[in-house]
Amino acid sequence: MNTVTETIGNGVDTEKMFATLDLIKAQPELAKFQFRVNNRWIDGSHNRSTIKGFYAAGGEDTTRSEAFEIDAGEPAILLGRDSGANPAEFLLHALAACLTTSIVYVAAARKVELPAVESTLTGDMDVRGALGVDDEPRNGFERIGVSFRVTGDAPEEKLREVVEQATKRSAVYDMVTNGVPVAVQVTTD
Amino acid sequence: MNTVTETIGNGVDTEKMFATLDLIKAQPELAKFQFRVNNRWIDGSHNRSTIKGFYAAGGEDTTRSEAFEIDAGEPAILLGRDSGANPAEFLLHALAACLTTSIVYVAAARKVELPAVESTLTGDMDVRGALGVDDEPRNGFERIGVSFRVTGDAPEEKLREVVEQATKRSAVYDMVTNGVPVAVQVTTD
Repeated sequence: MNTVTETIGNGVDTEKMFATLDLIKAQPELAKFQFRVNNRWIDGSHNRSTIKGFYAAGGEDTTRSEAFEIDAGEPAILLGRDSGANPAEFLLHALAACLTTSIVYVAAARKVELPAVESTLTGDMDVRGALGVDDEPRNGFERIGVSFRVTGDAPEEKLREVVEQATKRSAVYDMVTNGVPVAVQVTTD
Repeated sequence: MNTVTETIGNGVDTEKMFATLDLIKAQPELAKFQFRVNNRWIDGSHNRSTIKGFYAAGGEDTTRSEAFEIDAGEPAILLGRDSGANPAEFLLHALAACLTTSIVYVAAARKVELPAVESTLTGDMDVRGALGVDDEPRNGFERIGVSFRVTGDAPEEKLREVVEQATKRSAVYDMVTNGVPVAVQVTTD
């Protein structure tokens, strides 16, 4: 008789996590992923992304059954109608989400239970850059501030180590702090 | 009798756009904006951002009446339950949305009508970095590809100039290609 023991920490199946890590160690070619977004302009600052397919672990994913539809917009002062959060806010959301998931996964691997993780992110921008009024300010945020409040069943030092390790491994933190090469192609008709 | 003429191009009120640009030229201190995201962990890779308040044009915004609630998640292969698009996909969405809005605004300023703007973005990642299996691959995307299809009532060369100028002014394109300093603070309890 087999006894199946699920080891769940912070809602993360840690047995599956360690099995995935072992598999990727043994077969590094399975680590090649590609994520994709299709975006369609609707009106003014309103556009919508459709997110579904991705390539992972040697093949096209077949597990995600429904597409995510995500609307972007701008508030009135940036000439929009609040049809969605604005693109810069979505970048902050991407960063918050990635750091949070990294914290939760690292904590699970280290057997630290986390009753709560909350964060506030701020991005400071001089909009003269993006509006083309002045060439001196950059277009994007000059700086981003991330403030985490982590509640856990471990000493403060261990919780801080979890956040530090999570920051070192976060995909979006890497991209936002170090930048990524972006190639833009255009077809017109 | 007054005649009110609204000048709308691509759903953008260009009279308001030029008035905003003139105002910010005259009073550069109005260009200081701060965007914010509050994020709360729910379970496993599921977390939720709440996006509402921001600082703009000398004061706290009072026009946005409702908060945006945006869920993030991971697919099964990354130990989640598809509770939302994943953080790296949200970064692609932020980039798609920002470039698209920039294209639409630049086209409106240049009186180019755009019946359609569509894009596909891809991000290639070797997940050994983010999973901590190998130190060599970076955590984030190695590269991002952006493919735009722009339909407009202008010669191809003019449409390409619009996309080029929009790329030069996009806040998220600047951040994703050049990086932003991020300061992470932690409070534990």
